[in-house]
Amino acid sequence: MGSVVDELERILAPGQVDAGEVALRRYAVDQAPVIDFQLPLAVVFPESVADVQAVVRACAGTGVAIVARGAGTGVSGGAHATKNCIVLSLERMDRILALNPDDETAVVEPGVVNAVLNDAAAAHGLMYAPDPASFRTSTIGGNVATNAGGLRCAKYGVTRDSVLAVDVVLADGSLIHTGHQTFKGVAGYDLTGLFVGSEGTLGIVVGVTVRLKYLPRDVHTVAAFYPDFRQAAAGVLAVGRARVQPAIMELLDGGTLAQLDDIHGSDLTARGRSLLLIQTDGFGAAAEAQVVRDVLLAGGAAVTTEASEEAERLVELRRHSRGVEVDDEYRVGEDVAVPRSRLVDYVAALDAMASDHGVHLKVVAHAGDGNLHPTFWIDRTGGSVDAVALKRLHRVLDESITAALAMGGTITGEHGVGQYKLRWLGQEQPEPVREIQRRIKELFDPEGILNPGKAI
Amino acid sequence: MGSVVDELERILAPGQVDAGEVALRRYAVDQAPVIDFQLPLAVVFPESVADVQAVVRACAGTGVAIVARGAGTGVSGGAHATKNCIVLSLERMDRILALNPDDETAVVEPGVVNAVLNDAAAAHGLMYAPDPASFRTSTIGGNVATNAGGLRCAKYGVTRDSVLAVDVVLADGSLIHTGHQTFKGVAGYDLTGLFVGSEGTLGIVVGVTVRLKYLPRDVHTVAAFYPDFRQAAAGVLAVGRARVQPAIMELLDGGTLAQLDDIHGSDLTARGRSLLLIQTDGFGAAAEAQVVRDVLLAGGAAVTTEASEEAERLVELRRHSRGVEVDDEYRVGEDVAVPRSRLVDYVAALDAMASDHGVHLKVVAHAGDGNLHPTFWIDRTGGSVDAVALKRLHRVLDESITAALAMGGTITGEHGVGQYKLRWLGQEQPEPVREIQRRIKELFDPEGILNPGKAI
Ligand SMILES: Cc1cc2nc3c(=O)[nH]c(=O)nc-3n(C[C@H](O)[C@H](O)[C@H](O)COP(=O)(O)OP(=O)(O)OC[C@H]3O[C@@H](n4cnc5c(N)ncnc54)[C@H](O)[C@@H]3O)c2cc1C
Ligand SMILES: Cc1cc2nc3c(=O)[nH]c(=O)nc-3n(C[C@H](O)[C@H](O)[C@H](O)COP(=O)(O)OP(=O)(O)OC[C@H]3O[C@@H](n4cnc5c(N)ncnc54)[C@H](O)[C@@H]3O)c2cc1C
Repeated sequence: MGSVVDELERILAPGQVDAGEVALRRYAVDQAPVIDFQLPLAVVFPESVADVQAVVRACAGTGVAIVARGAGTGVSGGAHATKNCIVLSLERMDRILALNPDDETAVVEPGVVNAVLNDAAAAHGLMYAPDPASFRTSTIGGNVATNAGGLRCAKYGVTRDSVLAVDVVLADGSLIHTGHQTFKGVAGYDLTGLFVGSEGTLGIVVGVTVRLKYLPRDVHTVAAFYPDFRQAAAGVLAVGRARVQPAIMELLDGGTLAQLDDIHGSDLTARGRSLLLIQTDGFGAAAEAQVVRDVLLAGGAAVTTEASEEAERLVELRRHSRGVEVDDEYRVGEDVAVPRSRLVDYVAALDAMASDHGVHLKVVAHAGDGNLHPTFWIDRTGGSVDAVALKRLHRVLDESITAALAMGGTITGEHGVGQYKLRWLGQEQPEPVREIQRRIKELFDPEGILNPGKAI
Repeated sequence: MGSVVDELERILAPGQVDAGEVALRRYAVDQAPVIDFQLPLAVVFPESVADVQAVVRACAGTGVAIVARGAGTGVSGGAHATKNCIVLSLERMDRILALNPDDETAVVEPGVVNAVLNDAAAAHGLMYAPDPASFRTSTIGGNVATNAGGLRCAKYGVTRDSVLAVDVVLADGSLIHTGHQTFKGVAGYDLTGLFVGSEGTLGIVVGVTVRLKYLPRDVHTVAAFYPDFRQAAAGVLAVGRARVQPAIMELLDGGTLAQLDDIHGSDLTARGRSLLLIQTDGFGAAAEAQVVRDVLLAGGAAVTTEASEEAERLVELRRHSRGVEVDDEYRVGEDVAVPRSRLVDYVAALDAMASDHGVHLKVVAHAGDGNLHPTFWIDRTGGSVDAVALKRLHRVLDESITAALAMGGTITGEHGVGQYKLRWLGQEQPEPVREIQRRIKELFDPEGILNPGKAI
């Protein structure tokens, strides 16, 4: 334990610095596979902007790194502790500072949980649109730092599209405000956009002004079961060709259905090998749902007819289709995106890879965005490490990335590069583009104390 | 004329470099007031990415600046020539390179005119959503460089929200590609967002991948006349409180109505002192329009009843409510935005300022976004310069900016800072935020050859 921790204990109030073993372990990792386990020197709980500034100042010049953390639900290792770091947990800065119904904006501290903001907004007929499946636990600060997507992003956009302004503590402890309190504003460079998705490497987000959208007055949900995944993926394109913009368009494969049946005792597998869940919303929801049903029926789906409670229950199930199992070295969830027209091809390629290499595969997709979450896993042979099987797993992982890129895709649609996906970044971005990012990082954080070894 | 021009003539084909007086004058300025008139050394017309690279390389190291130009419809002087510069007109790079209906994306050269892309997309039931009122002439490259807004941005977002990737020639002549061809992608920092709105100061945009949206199948337009502007502005909030999201929500004051009557022989002034134009679109358009009508009637408006051709004609008129007169030193159009709840207060403040100082005022607003375009002018006294009146004009201009900022607004909602609004930027952004931008500029353009003296 270094002197920085003593210094922090001196500066902050009792209970704000925890260097106990339990806390260190609990805050050492997020939900991603761990490739280089490190314990932080301490976990620090700022309660104000001034606290954050004091912590950053205490670390600056000492070589102690700062890993910002929201709820630790990240799945790319962005919040994993690194060597000689403190973890800065923003969870206690959880106040909604303003909610302006007529302006349709809110100002929040970074630790506000997504669902809490949404509940507060709902009281005014408003919503904060970006809804990662982790919305009940993940924080707005974490959402901003990862530019989180979610289920209803096909229609309402990702986090970036709802963030108007941020307050950021920079690497020297100074505080800046970027962006605007208005819906539109183009004065100067888009610094707000630069911080969104920067995964704690350019500054600590200590305040966020968001735009709220209208809670839809009507929601219709259609569940369509298909004999196979390819036909379901084709259904996504068919809805697009009908020029209907659903709020939610989620695609679940047979493996995912089987898993949901296992956990929840449902009978999804009996009804099809793939499920396409579509939700339309707004004043046109009923008419849109009707077009969706017609189009999917014509494409060979078994479609729920009623304005269906059951379909809505399925969306709830989908929201929880991750999270029961945590990824580890035997089980890795991916997050590629491909142009929508390649969905079918990409899933076919995944199937082929997985069966070639004897690796288990299940896939869910935010299909409206072409954003896929394949999960690859191998069986644990009685608890002991099977090096050969692990090699096969990594082979398939690598191939799945290469295939996505070859189709014009990206290595991460919404989860961020974090620590885990760094190894693939060079395949997506050539050296000159990476070099620009390093230089931007250097500009904001010359000592490299903010979440080193992440994101870029 | 410097040796750079000779060099450019040598490198490029005949007809690609024009140093004739007519071209120099024609390309010296955009549509903004001119505060420092300069002729460029030459106007250069690249026809390929390689041409742009060659031009940039030829200028690098010589101290000759490069002012990129699309259609020159900018109203902030971003495309004004500066001392010792060439104007790089992208107008000949006007090909739509790809239009992918299933992916709902298009790839275009920067000189493609907004309306041309929209026509091409419409053939597939798609649209490129950001629609500045200049859409018939302005270019996608110019729209990207200014992060242009438009009429239907309240619902569909601004240019940034539709741009997925850009190809950019940097200040050293190298070419990079940023972003992703997919709807979502969070690998690395958001360089795309950094180029969007950077007004030609960080690089030359030579290619743009955009996301397309669905052409709405149904559009309903409501025109509501009010006895005064304040009531009309209150109508904007009332529609918001009814949680209806119109595609278009434009507010015109009495001065604007009078001007339209003058030009088009209409009788708008006879019908009210202010007009609120609302367009709903999509499957719910009719139902939304009905709610809008009810709400506006309750607020004292005279509302068109029929699904009205007339109202649509009014939207067309609105699209052309600028452009008949060009701003000059006697007439300046502004572009502030305020939080929506302050629309009423802000317009009241404008009225007071204008009458206090004896300056003419008319206002149109993209009211859904809280983005106002007041135009201030003074009468020309027989063609001679009236220094006292000019002083009054500038006083009101300054006050209008200060008032917007005091209400939590911005000095530019969509037009950009360019050259003209630089004087107010310091009021909006404190020195540390400006300094970060200068350092980003330096990182991308160490010699300062890209559109110096603009944007930041
Ligand atoms: C069950 C489950 C479902 C999920 N579904 C989705 C989904 O649908 N869409 C999606 O995009 N993601 C999803 N995720 C991933 C994860 O929830 C998101 O990335 C989320 O945005 C992380 O928020 P967090 O508060 O947990 O941040 P953390 O995991 O604590 O941190 C994430 C990153 O942000 C940085 N960070 C956190 N707070 C700050 C701050 N205030 N300032 C600067 N940097 C900060 C961290 O350093 C780290 O790099 C899911 C995860 C789980 C476990
Ligand atoms: C009648 C009228 C109505 C208008 N309505 C709107 C409106 O509703 N919303 C709105 O936002 N604006 C509006 N404008 C302003 C203007 O049309 C927009 O700013 C538009 O985006 C400019 O496009 P352009 O092609 O004319 O660019 P230009 O005026 O030529 O250039 C604008 C800026 O972008 C830079 N630039 C241009 N091309 C490139 C490139 N390829 N690479 C790098 N930099 C480049 C220039 O250097 C300059 O700084 C209007 C203007 C007029 C005259």
